[in-house]
Amino acid sequence: IMPVVNKTAHEFDKPRLEALLNRRFFYAPAFEIYGGVAGLYDYGPPGSSLQANIIAEWRKHFIIEDHMLELDTTIMTPAPVFETSGHVARFADWMVKDIKTGDVLRADHLVANVLEARLAGDKEARGLAAAPPTEDKKRKKKNVKTTVVKLEDDVVKEYEIILAQLDNYTGTQIGELCRKHNLRNPDTDNEVSEPQLFNLMFASSIGPTGQHPGFLRPETAQGHFLNFSRLLEFNNGRVPFASAQIGRSFRNEISPRAGLLRVREFTMAEIEHYVDPEDKNHERFDEFRNVQLVLLDRHVQEAGGNKTKIMTVGEAVENGTIANETLGYFLARISQFLLKIGINPERLRFRQHMANEMAHYATDCWDAEIHNSTGWTECVGCADRAAYDLTVHSNKTGQPLVVRQALKDPIITEKEIPEWNKKVLGKTYKQDAGIIQKEVELMDQEQLTKLKGELAQGKTAITVSGGATFELTPEVLTIDRKTLKQSVREFTPNVIEPSFGIGRILYTLLEHSYWCREDDVERGVLSLPPLVAPTKVLVVPISARDEFNPLVKEVSSKLRKAGVFSRVDDSNTSIGKRYARNDELGTPYGITIDFASVQNRTMTLRERDTTQQRIGSVDEVIGVVTELVDGGIDWDEACKRLPAYDGVQAV
Amino acid sequence: IMPVVNKTAHEFDKPRLEALLNRRFFYAPAFEIYGGVAGLYDYGPPGSSLQANIIAEWRKHFIIEDHMLELDTTIMTPAPVFETSGHVARFADWMVKDIKTGDVLRADHLVANVLEARLAGDKEARGLAAAPPTEDKKRKKKNVKTTVVKLEDDVVKEYEIILAQLDNYTGTQIGELCRKHNLRNPDTDNEVSEPQLFNLMFASSIGPTGQHPGFLRPETAQGHFLNFSRLLEFNNGRVPFASAQIGRSFRNEISPRAGLLRVREFTMAEIEHYVDPEDKNHERFDEFRNVQLVLLDRHVQEAGGNKTKIMTVGEAVENGTIANETLGYFLARISQFLLKIGINPERLRFRQHMANEMAHYATDCWDAEIHNSTGWTECVGCADRAAYDLTVHSNKTGQPLVVRQALKDPIITEKEIPEWNKKVLGKTYKQDAGIIQKEVELMDQEQLTKLKGELAQGKTAITVSGGATFELTPEVLTIDRKTLKQSVREFTPNVIEPSFGIGRILYTLLEHSYWCREDDVERGVLSLPPLVAPTKVLVVPISARDEFNPLVKEVSSKLRKAGVFSRVDDSNTSIGKRYARNDELGTPYGITIDFASVQNRTMTLRERDTTQQRIGSVDEVIGVVTELVDGGIDWDEACKRLPAYDGVQAV
Repeated sequence: IMPVVNKTAHEFDKPRLEALLNRRFFYAPAFEIYGGVAGLYDYGPPGSSLQANIIAEWRKHFIIEDHMLELDTTIMTPAPVFETSGHVARFADWMVKDIKTGDVLRADHLVANVLEARLAGDKEARGLAAAPPTEDKKRKKKNVKTTVVKLEDDVVKEYEIILAQLDNYTGTQIGELCRKHNLRNPDTDNEVSEPQLFNLMFASSIGPTGQHPGFLRPETAQGHFLNFSRLLEFNNGRVPFASAQIGRSFRNEISPRAGLLRVREFTMAEIEHYVDPEDKNHERFDEFRNVQLVLLDRHVQEAGGNKTKIMTVGEAVENGTIANETLGYFLARISQFLLKIGINPERLRFRQHMANEMAHYATDCWDAEIHNSTGWTECVGCADRAAYDLTVHSNKTGQPLVVRQALKDPIITEKEIPEWNKKVLGKTYKQDAGIIQKEVELMDQEQLTKLKGELAQGKTAITVSGGATFELTPEVLTIDRKTLKQSVREFTPNVIEPSFGIGRILYTLLEHSYWCREDDVERGVLSLPPLVAPTKVLVVPISARDEFNPLVKEVSSKLRKAGVFSRVDDSNTSIGKRYARNDELGTPYGITIDFASVQNRTMTLRERDTTQQRIGSVDEVIGVVTELVDGGIDWDEACKRLPAYDGVQAV
Repeated sequence: IMPVVNKTAHEFDKPRLEALLNRRFFYAPAFEIYGGVAGLYDYGPPGSSLQANIIAEWRKHFIIEDHMLELDTTIMTPAPVFETSGHVARFADWMVKDIKTGDVLRADHLVANVLEARLAGDKEARGLAAAPPTEDKKRKKKNVKTTVVKLEDDVVKEYEIILAQLDNYTGTQIGELCRKHNLRNPDTDNEVSEPQLFNLMFASSIGPTGQHPGFLRPETAQGHFLNFSRLLEFNNGRVPFASAQIGRSFRNEISPRAGLLRVREFTMAEIEHYVDPEDKNHERFDEFRNVQLVLLDRHVQEAGGNKTKIMTVGEAVENGTIANETLGYFLARISQFLLKIGINPERLRFRQHMANEMAHYATDCWDAEIHNSTGWTECVGCADRAAYDLTVHSNKTGQPLVVRQALKDPIITEKEIPEWNKKVLGKTYKQDAGIIQKEVELMDQEQLTKLKGELAQGKTAITVSGGATFELTPEVLTIDRKTLKQSVREFTPNVIEPSFGIGRILYTLLEHSYWCREDDVERGVLSLPPLVAPTKVLVVPISARDEFNPLVKEVSSKLRKAGVFSRVDDSNTSIGKRYARNDELGTPYGITIDFASVQNRTMTLRERDTTQQRIGSVDEVIGVVTELVDGGIDWDEACKRLPAYDGVQAV
């Protein structure tokens, strides 16, 4: 009975989607009436709700389900923290300036854009169709005008090698490339300056004296690590456990361009899972062993390919594609989360970082990449950061950031231990006592055994590092074999970090949800799942007359009690227009209240994608729509419970 | 049957509460292992949950209940926005520097602290007990050592006048006071510098060129105002409506000191309610007319008093104490919200700002003040900002930020309207045509009537501003009486702004919830209401043995399905210690699972404040605790449903 809805009658039209999102205020450029600022966006009512619903589900799916310890740490961070973490030195991009206009360009983007345009021009000159741009390119490309010029064969070869190695070049090398190959700002054809490193953190100053530089965090992770000892104590000293945080982060991008995909201020959701480096198995792995993933591993990429493999997490961990169970567990859980909120499974893959591509701290890393109109986009990173962060902060501050674990079977060792008679030591050697003591303490077991033997003979002599020699007797020093019991193991845990860019997920979800009615390309629909849709049910009185008020209030209040978020639309336009507006807002269900409703206490229920309408009593319809929203039943099942309706007010 | 619990057996002990909050990681100084930064705090797991629960209830109570339009705008803001809003010029405090150490002090705090210490010393010298510091003082006071020195009577008088007028002084005047009265840094006894204005916004720079200064927002409000036109359109062009936003804001306080009450980074929840300036009545006012409020109005304060009055919102609006229904509506709703989350009604009052105290934009303002160990603290502000913000942004950007409202009864006016024959005008007067036309257009109705009469005579002459005179004939100019119909009214709405400091509310709630067991001051309890408690139910298996696992899982899963957030504590300590820990965490209910539970499927239910235990079957206990947490029943009712339990594991 469910009619087939053709959602692909019209090709995806990005400007049309963007117009819809702007018109319905999902999001808009921030400070628009002041001319806007690149890379800053405000979320309007439907965008805020969609974001809040994605975050609420994230909290349920990850934090509550796995009893993670939630944190809320500050954005403003004193500079020493990011000096230690490596961000001050390394969280930077190379930029060049147009020598005449002063316009700033990302150096690697410039090289890529110009060389790719030249290669495309060469292909055309050779009578070959220019290959469509590979969608795997992570770089955002500007449209550089192609000039049809044939290149020498060895120049083509050279350009191709440069492009393949682009991520490996230093700033100096990029500067040389620009001069050697005459790479200019494509917008103005002017030369560019020497590359300079530009740190992507926003800088500020804390307090009134100007003496305390600070940065806005570019990720929430450091806030977790600095609180590790408190978190561990909260968890009664046991690992594994995870902390989680949802919050704002900032990156001062050189030239943000791709809408919500590359912005300067964004909401992240990050998990830091602390695990014994010697045991990265996961307690719940078996529950998720059979989850299937689409994987693009590093070997395939290093061989120049991009062919994905489908396998279960269980297989991937067994055959070593995924390094350990904990990483595998999170990849499976990330996949389930993304599909649950409405990401198209055919446009989701997990790509492993290549060796030269990984962040300085990571030992293995997989990105959940979601395909959209700009290509495959990293939306979730899942890295094994090993012990890097805890170690550097501990070294810098002198605070131990370690787990102390009682050993079930204590480790028993026997050792020769030197023992001094402190009184005799001081009296005999005076100011040299310290040097002598230190010399003996530096001895290994073999040397101590030898010394013990010599002392057993009555006396011996040692030469200290300064060159002086001193006599030692059993009166001042005895060496005894002792049994030592080590009952506590101390270690720095490794950290596995799933890190979500909420804005990127939200935008790709909007692309995946968008389609236009087969019979009218102007009528857009966002097929958001009820779980994340900003409004679940629209209540539509056929007119704004007073006589509808009691029933509208009753329905709204019953929906509220059932936990279903609804909105009333009693605006002064036709029912058709009100539903069309709410199709654009992604509202999955609509309840129409007409004159018959007031008389007979019946209402119709409309489904967004099919526009089908069914009819039932007030309480029946509320019962069915509550189950639909909670995911207990689907529309097919709803149609079995409620008869079809084809009244005049159908739209 | 409910035993009386004595919560006031021990006097409130702030260091003891702070130790508890630190030990249980409600919050802690941020970057503690780096030595910390004043005014920055991280929330740990219970603090994050408490905050998330307060925010969730806020969203329900305000946004959902009143269909407000939620926003999520950026923190990073380009400088021109705050230049227009007045923050660059006025969002500042006067500071002075210790001329030797360079230590920075807030100028008004310095004056207050030193003069108050001298007055206290004088009182002591006169044999009078120094009055306890007035708890109404909003300034955070440092403990300045009192020296017992008697002052001249007229000096005492002068000091008292200075203190009363402190908020009115300019920086220069404060500098003069410091010199005249020899006011020095009380920590060092050094002189201080001339007062300088210190802007409290954190400054940064947007983009790689350094040409775009930006600030971190000190409030979320501007993000609402700049989106006004989009919001209005989203609301189908109608007012009143409200936007709402929950988010981080920043203030670079000169010397933050009072824990969570004065911090540099904090979460706010702000509502901007847009209303017709000619009609500030509120649709739902009658529902809340009888809510009682404790009010401290401006007249009482201006007369030097601080005696509050209790009245209903309805009375207060009728007798003009509260300016209008919309302000009254919000004060009632704010009060209900605060009481719902657990604020003590006896420690809540609404204080009206005095005329000289209001922010530059406000026309009326009430603060919800909550009493805590530092005195009465502003936790919610509720200001009528009039049309200030929308007007200044509109003037600056040239974008209309107005409501256009169709008039039911159009306004009909008759007017003399000049009409030109453009062809003749140009041919006759050439380059002077423009000046002549402008001269006529500037005429008022009286002048036009006169001109009309003259033209009716055949011709006339006018003198333009340059002094030249031109002849006019009916051929080039006719003046006719026309009927004009104005069917649209355009106005800038007024804004009523309830603004919540979530951290301040959270901290005072913790103070109000804290008490110690009568028989043991070491056993602290946080009596947080279930609505906001971080964990609702603690599940406690009597030991970590495997045989308890199935039942623990069953109970956890049933609670999850019932929507009740629970945690299992199977740590390796006694049940008593586990409950004591959770009393400190504010967990209202506990379920104990023991050997009898496994055998008979019975469990005990413990109430936090009374420590009473009741017993019932697994499903009975889950049913009762679900209703307790949802607020459907109270503990007395629960005791009627479940028999008492006094088994051996009682704590």
